[in-house]
Amino acid sequence: MKAIGLIVEYNPLHNGHAYHLRASRDVSGADIVICVMSGYFLQRGEPAAFSRRVRTEMALSVGADLVVELPYAYSTQHAHWFARGGVSILDDLFADEFYFGSEAGHIDDFHELDTFMHENTQCLQEKVRAHVKSGISYPSAQARAFFDLNPPAHLPDLSQPNNILGYHYVKAASRQLGARIASQTIPRISAAYHDDTLPPDQSIASATAIRKMLSESGDAAIIRPYVPEQVYEMINRFYVQDQPMHEWEAYYPYLQLLLSTRSAEALSRIYEAEEGLENRLIKTALTQPTFHDFMHAAKTKRYTWTRLQRLSTHILTGTAKTDIDEALGVPARPRSVRILGFSESGRAYLNRIKKHTPLSLYHRPPQNKNAQQWLDERAARAYYAILNGSERVDKWKEEYTQPPVYPD
Amino acid sequence: MKAIGLIVEYNPLHNGHAYHLRASRDVSGADIVICVMSGYFLQRGEPAAFSRRVRTEMALSVGADLVVELPYAYSTQHAHWFARGGVSILDDLFADEFYFGSEAGHIDDFHELDTFMHENTQCLQEKVRAHVKSGISYPSAQARAFFDLNPPAHLPDLSQPNNILGYHYVKAASRQLGARIASQTIPRISAAYHDDTLPPDQSIASATAIRKMLSESGDAAIIRPYVPEQVYEMINRFYVQDQPMHEWEAYYPYLQLLLSTRSAEALSRIYEAEEGLENRLIKTALTQPTFHDFMHAAKTKRYTWTRLQRLSTHILTGTAKTDIDEALGVPARPRSVRILGFSESGRAYLNRIKKHTPLSLYHRPPQNKNAQQWLDERAARAYYAILNGSERVDKWKEEYTQPPVYPD
Repeated sequence: MKAIGLIVEYNPLHNGHAYHLRASRDVSGADIVICVMSGYFLQRGEPAAFSRRVRTEMALSVGADLVVELPYAYSTQHAHWFARGGVSILDDLFADEFYFGSEAGHIDDFHELDTFMHENTQCLQEKVRAHVKSGISYPSAQARAFFDLNPPAHLPDLSQPNNILGYHYVKAASRQLGARIASQTIPRISAAYHDDTLPPDQSIASATAIRKMLSESGDAAIIRPYVPEQVYEMINRFYVQDQPMHEWEAYYPYLQLLLSTRSAEALSRIYEAEEGLENRLIKTALTQPTFHDFMHAAKTKRYTWTRLQRLSTHILTGTAKTDIDEALGVPARPRSVRILGFSESGRAYLNRIKKHTPLSLYHRPPQNKNAQQWLDERAARAYYAILNGSERVDKWKEEYTQPPVYPD
Repeated sequence: MKAIGLIVEYNPLHNGHAYHLRASRDVSGADIVICVMSGYFLQRGEPAAFSRRVRTEMALSVGADLVVELPYAYSTQHAHWFARGGVSILDDLFADEFYFGSEAGHIDDFHELDTFMHENTQCLQEKVRAHVKSGISYPSAQARAFFDLNPPAHLPDLSQPNNILGYHYVKAASRQLGARIASQTIPRISAAYHDDTLPPDQSIASATAIRKMLSESGDAAIIRPYVPEQVYEMINRFYVQDQPMHEWEAYYPYLQLLLSTRSAEALSRIYEAEEGLENRLIKTALTQPTFHDFMHAAKTKRYTWTRLQRLSTHILTGTAKTDIDEALGVPARPRSVRILGFSESGRAYLNRIKKHTPLSLYHRPPQNKNAQQWLDERAARAYYAILNGSERVDKWKEEYTQPPVYPD
């Protein structure tokens, strides 16, 4: 029996994601597909537009067998930790391989990139430091340092976010975790050439583009061509019955209260508050009426949108540096994981592995939580803060009462 | 020239308040009436239903000559600190007397009460401790300890909130502050006997009752009989043009976010978080959908509504124990005060005293704030948190741009 894994956000799941899952299964000949999915806040520091549960349903509806949660301590993080958390969980769930999407789609190039980066570690670090000193962001500094070394032309270009993530996946699997799991990549499909790889009635748009369409039109019908039919139905139902998309704007009043009333010293204890960045956010929040205005005013060459959004998320959830230290632990890797949903075969697979996995698996959080689970709990609380009083309290309760998704 | 002072909240100003101001001026023969008024949060831990500016206008409209702000460090406080802050400011503004309302209206009784309490200090303290241990609230324990000593029957009854406040005023003036100012009291008028003291078309209702009427009917006309005509017009205008009343319910989502995402350890640093009370609030906030439900569920014999509301306010404004310590200073008394409004004679009075007062007087907060001013700033930020994005930012800006109220 072969199991493979994907590390996903599905915000929302679209035709490109469905293709990637299907292609990974086909290429690998796997019996089981495991998705490690971010919970309520995503890597770029955004609330998930759709709830964790709806996104779990989406994953299962396109063929995932098992969906587990990437804990907050890893999900709203630099690529390094995000990758390490995801790969570690998949390895501990005995996935044989994991598949990520990349432009070129050659895993050997990523291995070669990893070797190249490793062999030039010291030189790269010095160059990164020098570039950061010149006032640019850490990711840009890393990309420039990479190019300074004249890397072979076929290596994945480290100025592309997808390649950065791919590099960190491969590094985590082959170098850091003592992992058994093998890295694989599948070429991404984009709007430009989707006709060759998808049925003619399926179109490709990015999750960002899909959310924008939804947000601007307020009508789920507009995104129907870009998502699997069953996902469209879920989004339509979510929209009508449940709640609007969770977007940063709705959280901005809370962020503003926190930034305008907590002391700079208290805010400096928040994770990713470095170099006095908290002072910049405080000052900006006092004058900017919307989150969009706030981000535009706060952003600089050095502090990217993503960096500021992640810090804002940590302020919202009250995540201190010490909280993350404690949650990551030593050696930094998840030790427990929440099961979000499974198919019939996923359930059988869980039964087979549950005695052997080093992970503590759980369906609902225990009353006595470890540091990692506390952060997940607080993320859920902050995520639902924008609902009305009784809805909010109900959603908080559901964290403890809802069983995993298990379609009939 | 004679100046007198009142310590007020005016939430909103009603016929009883107008009577008290008029009667104090008449009895004293004063030329100048100074009001020390709470800013955005009140003694019982509530947001002021009407903005500080509107309440300043109300005070001036019924004959106050000068309105200054009771700083947050004293306004949202136990009776002891509330009284001390108000009396100290009036003394430093060279008021000859201050007038408070009481049921009986004999100042000698309050002086006698103060002497009685002072002579029995040690015995009272022991009894209070014993009563608190039995599980009742501090104010109840104090009232019981007082009765345990069989006080003379004519002394003001210390189980009445108004008498507690009166006692603290007199104690602050005659015993604690080395103050020059003299204490005076005026009999309160209530609905029961107002016909003798007010024109027949003016009725009496408490500020609480008036807010309730407004809140339930949503129509300013309903309160017209209970407030001076010009105050009615202000409330009507405030309602229509400006914003709804500021009520705790609107702040509850913010309080809930803070209680559900900050650590118990962080919350234990908040002023008035004692004996693990923060844990009780955290637990309650997770299950109660409204502020009203929250308070009812959290309240006990020991922890009164007022105590819990004040703690909730300090959580909202992020006021730590160390912040209050620093703001009160040693010896604890205000050293600066914000001028909120004045009449023509109030302005002349200010010009006369400004070179002599030990208080630093200001119209708008300086960029470099002292600890007391920082708390006022944060209170204003939290107070306006419930408005929409651009309104909120505008109101925050007005803190620095609006001159005091000075009616033509």
